[in-house]
Amino acid sequence: MQSVSLKQIKVTDGFLKTRLTANRNNTVYNVYDRFKETGRFDALKCVKEETKSHIFWDSDVAKWIEGACYMLYANEDKNLRALMDQVIDDMVNNQLENGYFNSYFQVYEPDAIFTRRNDHELYCAGHIFEAAVALKDYLNDDRLLNFASKYVDYIIDRFTVKKDTGFVTPGHQEIELALLRLYKLTNEEKYLNLAKFFIDNRGANDKEECSFYNQSHLPVRHQTTAVGHAVRALYLYTAMADMALTIKDVELENAVKTLFDDIVKSKLYVTGGTGSSYNGEKFGIDYNLNNLGAYNETCAAIALCYFADKLMQLYGDAKYGDIIEKVIYNAFMSGVSIDGNSYFYVNPLEVKKDRVEYESTLPNWAKDKHPLLKRVKVFDCSCCPPNVVRFTEEIPSYAVYYDEDLSTITVSQYLSEEVYTPLASVNIDSNFPYDGKVKISVNSYGKDIKLKLRKPSWCKVNFYNEENGYLVFEGVFDDAEIELDFKMSFYEIYANPTVLEDFGKVCFNYGPLVLCAEGTDNDFNILSVKIPKKAKIKGEVLYGDPYVVNANLKVLYYPKTEKLYDVKPPKKIEKTLKLIPYFAWANRDENDMAVWFTKC
Amino acid sequence: MQSVSLKQIKVTDGFLKTRLTANRNNTVYNVYDRFKETGRFDALKCVKEETKSHIFWDSDVAKWIEGACYMLYANEDKNLRALMDQVIDDMVNNQLENGYFNSYFQVYEPDAIFTRRNDHELYCAGHIFEAAVALKDYLNDDRLLNFASKYVDYIIDRFTVKKDTGFVTPGHQEIELALLRLYKLTNEEKYLNLAKFFIDNRGANDKEECSFYNQSHLPVRHQTTAVGHAVRALYLYTAMADMALTIKDVELENAVKTLFDDIVKSKLYVTGGTGSSYNGEKFGIDYNLNNLGAYNETCAAIALCYFADKLMQLYGDAKYGDIIEKVIYNAFMSGVSIDGNSYFYVNPLEVKKDRVEYESTLPNWAKDKHPLLKRVKVFDCSCCPPNVVRFTEEIPSYAVYYDEDLSTITVSQYLSEEVYTPLASVNIDSNFPYDGKVKISVNSYGKDIKLKLRKPSWCKVNFYNEENGYLVFEGVFDDAEIELDFKMSFYEIYANPTVLEDFGKVCFNYGPLVLCAEGTDNDFNILSVKIPKKAKIKGEVLYGDPYVVNANLKVLYYPKTEKLYDVKPPKKIEKTLKLIPYFAWANRDENDMAVWFTKC
Repeated sequence: MQSVSLKQIKVTDGFLKTRLTANRNNTVYNVYDRFKETGRFDALKCVKEETKSHIFWDSDVAKWIEGACYMLYANEDKNLRALMDQVIDDMVNNQLENGYFNSYFQVYEPDAIFTRRNDHELYCAGHIFEAAVALKDYLNDDRLLNFASKYVDYIIDRFTVKKDTGFVTPGHQEIELALLRLYKLTNEEKYLNLAKFFIDNRGANDKEECSFYNQSHLPVRHQTTAVGHAVRALYLYTAMADMALTIKDVELENAVKTLFDDIVKSKLYVTGGTGSSYNGEKFGIDYNLNNLGAYNETCAAIALCYFADKLMQLYGDAKYGDIIEKVIYNAFMSGVSIDGNSYFYVNPLEVKKDRVEYESTLPNWAKDKHPLLKRVKVFDCSCCPPNVVRFTEEIPSYAVYYDEDLSTITVSQYLSEEVYTPLASVNIDSNFPYDGKVKISVNSYGKDIKLKLRKPSWCKVNFYNEENGYLVFEGVFDDAEIELDFKMSFYEIYANPTVLEDFGKVCFNYGPLVLCAEGTDNDFNILSVKIPKKAKIKGEVLYGDPYVVNANLKVLYYPKTEKLYDVKPPKKIEKTLKLIPYFAWANRDENDMAVWFTKC
Repeated sequence: MQSVSLKQIKVTDGFLKTRLTANRNNTVYNVYDRFKETGRFDALKCVKEETKSHIFWDSDVAKWIEGACYMLYANEDKNLRALMDQVIDDMVNNQLENGYFNSYFQVYEPDAIFTRRNDHELYCAGHIFEAAVALKDYLNDDRLLNFASKYVDYIIDRFTVKKDTGFVTPGHQEIELALLRLYKLTNEEKYLNLAKFFIDNRGANDKEECSFYNQSHLPVRHQTTAVGHAVRALYLYTAMADMALTIKDVELENAVKTLFDDIVKSKLYVTGGTGSSYNGEKFGIDYNLNNLGAYNETCAAIALCYFADKLMQLYGDAKYGDIIEKVIYNAFMSGVSIDGNSYFYVNPLEVKKDRVEYESTLPNWAKDKHPLLKRVKVFDCSCCPPNVVRFTEEIPSYAVYYDEDLSTITVSQYLSEEVYTPLASVNIDSNFPYDGKVKISVNSYGKDIKLKLRKPSWCKVNFYNEENGYLVFEGVFDDAEIELDFKMSFYEIYANPTVLEDFGKVCFNYGPLVLCAEGTDNDFNILSVKIPKKAKIKGEVLYGDPYVVNANLKVLYYPKTEKLYDVKPPKKIEKTLKLIPYFAWANRDENDMAVWFTKC
């Protein structure tokens, strides 16, 4: 199956449109301003006395450029284009003669170039290459593509010819998937070969000790369990899946299928977040899904979508669309404020405001790690915000896939948009994630095609034409309109009893949305609440404002008692608990939040 | 009220006797051997080229000496005495002319003496002073007392006359309580005055920034909430309480009463452990009592007993005896293996073996903090093992207190021992913590006295002569024998609903013992278990072996399911859960353990 270029998609309405508007009006400018203030753009001028830099700053800038390219294709914005042009010029003008570029290393540690595996040089290069692909593909601008070509030549020479580098494969993966994008755009074999070099040598011919942490403990084709740093892992798996697509590598195909299933079976938060641990931003052991201490980096949510999208192209299985849906409306959307101006790096499933405040009074070395209660405009390690810029723009591409060989159109996400493929044009109209009704009109240009519409995993309606998670229609579609109702409703989810942090608890959902309770809406301790056996959620769901999923249910609240311990069970009183979409938390004040609640 | 010197106590039988036997036969020698191996004793020779040392090693050694003194008073052991004599000689022979001694600073950083507040010099001095008191008091040996006197003169000169030190009060408290012990032994005012200097200036006239972390955020008399490093806090509070006893300081009296109540009300684990947080070994915020991540240093359990003992002497309230009982049989005893040869520093209330094993595969910086699953013979920071040596010997002194003014004898702990006080002799015979029956015979030497026996807080029997937590008897006791039965039974405890980690859970107890389940005894995941509404524990309780509290109850076990999340609740099957005393956990293999269980 193939995905559709953003050039062939027009977002028409709906929730996604509101997110794109926030992204284009606010996020891209806010990230620019903060990066300008912190010196990330000036760093590209590479003037030792006047600029500072950091080993991974170039990657921040590159993601911003990539996002700007998609936006500028969709809507001209002279102001944004001027800013972007200057950034690109600074980058291009300071590329070294030999092709190398890193605004930190070439200025501050030229002797250390490609000596330290975990210092993100190839990661930065990868992000610049992705920006180069976007710039050429969407704006027909060659500047960064030429830059990338020269840079790749240098990398090839150092890593594969001279072999004089301190390491063989990158400590922070990303370049592999970028090289494959370069290959697909240009058809130049050197990109494919270098991607293959990094993928094949990883865990097989590395110089340093094998490490679970950055997925070099085993040759990648033999890896079966997601381990270590979540973002590195997911970028690697994305590249492996894309390589499998590109060169029909069965071992890679099997490896990525196994790795994805492993994540979904034992390492995925109900929100679609991954990477449960603060220490090393890593996947925890199976079923270790702490709510209060959840890490769930926003970049990991994005990377999981990239990975699932490649698997969708490989296998076309509805489960990949289910995960993309879960991630977009929950784990990813939690990472950015409603107005687009502030961001979470860490996306917990529970917070206790008093604990965060207490820790803030202590010296750093005595602090327990706690998430922020409020999104911020920039981080020191600010990988997530520019990833929001580019990924928000990429979401429209997850709606429709096509397979020319099988004459099949697959609708995976119900986003209101028009999509043009060589096989058919598809017009989707939906109020997801607020309403299960969708209208889809298809024109197959007079040809006989198969149309597959993903039935969301939460949908309880039985359809006559279900087949492996899809509703299947066949025929010639002449602007034929299909109207469906997947019927969104409130429902409870239980975790596997092996997830001890969720044992005896339930999580409330509405269609694709995970719900949470915030202290803001509830005048009692939301963490001292039990859900009655037969809880009935009443709610109103309107379209337009993310707060409008207001679910209410009667719960048993256990007020604070006098004693710390007692042989008598604590007393309860009835209260009404109000729930809102998880992604909308922390948009008002700093308060407690919880997703899982103890069930009677 | 006064406590009784160990010289006036003879332990006759019972649980305590088994612990003393392990301490004298194994612990004292194991700690010696490990400290010998790691160079802690050689360090005292202070030879730069041949020995190494560490800023806090002298304190480890001093605690070992103190414990050895108590043992040698109780039972001569020529081997132990010879070892101890050598250690003391090395210490005394290398004391500097000016009185200073620290085997690290005087050898490696003489210029840094008393410049860095958090480098434990006064903490080490304090422990040596405590050893000096024990050596003089129990073995009538002046060597360390002379050493201490000279050292204190030097400290007085530097801190209170020259005032040329880098700090005013110690970063790690302990010397304050040691100086008060020196004062009580010798009646020399200089010890009292220096203790007063450190207590009065703390948080009031410190040079550096105020710090919650080491309890110098406020003058100590104004402190109302236990904060920061738990052991530092509790040693300070012990000294404050002892000072209050010594000089009748009402402000201090009120402060320590308030601080103790604060701990018991919101910061005490059900085992009597304190200091919930790994980061900074510190008290967490109120009601933050994580089970899996509990820190609960063994030294904190010991220090809480020291503190409660002083409060017992100040106020005589039964609640202090209740806490000492709780700590001794649970939080403290968990810190040492049944055979006395290995130790925990961290005493969690829940462990997941697979998580600990998983983290051990990762580099240090990417590890989540997890407790050990197995006690070890020594730590790099090995404060707890020698604290076990001395504290085990001190436990007999918590049984009986006397008040000559009020002609009152108070029996606080039911330990099988003979206690001689100026008011009466008391002979206690009990099988605590396995049986609630106690026999107490008292001889008041023909005088009319009041005899108060603490009614344990878990006891449900109603007695005719109860008064504020005590059973009160009056009269002339002529070897009169009182037989009582506090009737130990199994019971459930609930935590305050504000303790979110225990919300919806219960903890099982038997008399003073907290019970736990271990994977070793249960062939299913003990963390995926729910306790039925009307759970009935059946058990057998025999005296002699710590494993013999075998409690069994029918529980609902929820096996691992296929899916990670499901709209259907997981299925349950009936199982029998076996419980053992918490202190006895991890004495067989490495396995899961839990204290709190989800209640239906």
